[in-house]
Amino acid sequence: MNKQKIHIVDTTLRDGSHAVSHSFTTEQAAEIAGSLDKTGVSLIELSHGDGIAGSSINYGFSTTPELELLKAAKPAVKNAKLTVLLIPGIGTIEDLKEAEECGIAAVRVATHVTEADTGIQHIQYAKSAGLMAVGFLMLSHMASPEKIVEQAKIFVDAGADYINIADSAGYMVPNDVRARISLLKSSIDIPVGFHSHNNLGCAIANSLAAVEEGATYIDATCRGLGAGAGNTQIEVLCAVLNRLGYDTGVDIYGLMDVAEKNVEPVMQRPQMINTASLMLGYAGVYSSFLLHTYRAAEKFGLNPRDILVELGRRQMVGGQEDMIVDVAYALVQQQKNK
Amino acid sequence: MNKQKIHIVDTTLRDGSHAVSHSFTTEQAAEIAGSLDKTGVSLIELSHGDGIAGSSINYGFSTTPELELLKAAKPAVKNAKLTVLLIPGIGTIEDLKEAEECGIAAVRVATHVTEADTGIQHIQYAKSAGLMAVGFLMLSHMASPEKIVEQAKIFVDAGADYINIADSAGYMVPNDVRARISLLKSSIDIPVGFHSHNNLGCAIANSLAAVEEGATYIDATCRGLGAGAGNTQIEVLCAVLNRLGYDTGVDIYGLMDVAEKNVEPVMQRPQMINTASLMLGYAGVYSSFLLHTYRAAEKFGLNPRDILVELGRRQMVGGQEDMIVDVAYALVQQQKNK
Repeated sequence: MNKQKIHIVDTTLRDGSHAVSHSFTTEQAAEIAGSLDKTGVSLIELSHGDGIAGSSINYGFSTTPELELLKAAKPAVKNAKLTVLLIPGIGTIEDLKEAEECGIAAVRVATHVTEADTGIQHIQYAKSAGLMAVGFLMLSHMASPEKIVEQAKIFVDAGADYINIADSAGYMVPNDVRARISLLKSSIDIPVGFHSHNNLGCAIANSLAAVEEGATYIDATCRGLGAGAGNTQIEVLCAVLNRLGYDTGVDIYGLMDVAEKNVEPVMQRPQMINTASLMLGYAGVYSSFLLHTYRAAEKFGLNPRDILVELGRRQMVGGQEDMIVDVAYALVQQQKNK
Repeated sequence: MNKQKIHIVDTTLRDGSHAVSHSFTTEQAAEIAGSLDKTGVSLIELSHGDGIAGSSINYGFSTTPELELLKAAKPAVKNAKLTVLLIPGIGTIEDLKEAEECGIAAVRVATHVTEADTGIQHIQYAKSAGLMAVGFLMLSHMASPEKIVEQAKIFVDAGADYINIADSAGYMVPNDVRARISLLKSSIDIPVGFHSHNNLGCAIANSLAAVEEGATYIDATCRGLGAGAGNTQIEVLCAVLNRLGYDTGVDIYGLMDVAEKNVEPVMQRPQMINTASLMLGYAGVYSSFLLHTYRAAEKFGLNPRDILVELGRRQMVGGQEDMIVDVAYALVQQQKNK
């Protein structure tokens, strides 16, 4: 009944990398990528959780360099596009060239939702190199639908093949997604995609809302493996889309088997919504803020949850962790003045 | 912005009972009920997973009789209504009288979605005894919105205080919930409630959809503890409703703490969506079918997932487990004739 093909983008080997402390082995990468490829997913993303060249003291070192993982996965990926994530400032065009030599077919250039201009040159380079290039807007709950359209158009003009908006903090509910996807879909002429996190338990319903509003590329991971409370669970998403009559082209039993047999044994902990991940989604802040927040809470005698809510209210983004102490201090002053 | 009060109904000590093999102790019951009571939830349901008198060879024996658990919980419940579930045919009015002696304030009379008439006498008795009485329609994905209204009116006429519809198999997506709740809400004059399972990952979004359509009693459990893939996770639901401006009257940090400190330590396994619970939601069948399905699949050389889908297509309900072999046999014949 719904004729538009929905492309399933598996990012188990990229966003899932966060949830296993960047410890994927070459054997795991080859096995997971190969078994995913057989299910009919369209893109298979493999990178450090923070993109190529993310392995570092800041973002966590990878046990095995991602270039090795890409080389191991490549022969097993026969139909899907082997894809990397690149966050400008962490990864460079030189890093992308190294990934090209490992046989990738696509790159997703991810910037903060208001900073698409920092990714123009990467999109342009990727297109000149014959790669599929995706403009990827992170923390998109922090921008209005209109702002997202403005930023997406920067990627469109640079030559992007599709635009992906990401609910990186797991903050959105379905109506938030509908507002953003529907305006974007009616404002640009290239396909639109969506990436969700499950911190508020809405990843599946948000992804479904995105599809209902016209998104045709949806990110997901086996068992939901990913940062925070995890991503959209791919086997659940595809079962839902299948029953509703959408054409994903994937084998849903096959995806259930990959999740159960290939990914679940690799997981270090079940992907659940605990207090910390719930608070991140509730406040709309990144998981990198947690440790600093707990420290500041202890130092100032505050409830860490109040600090997270204030950080969210101030729309703090990754890289501003040093502001947390200032925020905590301000909260103490506020409470004194009450 | 949304003035209508949303009553939060905690069923950790009832639906959650399934997920701990009916092993709650009097200490756990008192501690969980007491800490929940302090958060401001409206009803606290405590029973065997299959309702009062559910402890049996058919439904699983309880480690501690639920009447003992009710007696232990009662002194700790000072504001909420201590509530039991009663499934006519499993529990009787005599059982309800025993529960009354333990100090309950409410009973939810649960029937299959098309069999509300089997609960009339229980609702009538409960009202005559001064209890709050709730008409609870199970497996409501199997009935049209119109059929649900017809059945709900049987409970209304019997004197029910509110009508609760349950997505017992975790089959629904938000649009399924909207269709049912909106028609019900516009067709009857008493409040409407909703009970969800997370087999398709939609419990939170379905509950939110129910609230948006006018439901004012929402079931949930700490950490989602419950049958199948679990229930709506109470601390997540309340965080979402709080942020959207609904008045639940609950302390959301308090609920996070109950989930983390009182319930998580009791859990036997994390509440996740695995292949089995996903298939139950996808097919729309009860978890009691699983074991019989696996046996039949082995006997006939079938994929158990194909049997579950066929059981769902035939709208099999609990108690019809003996039909599974017939269905498997029919599937083998179908496959031969292809």
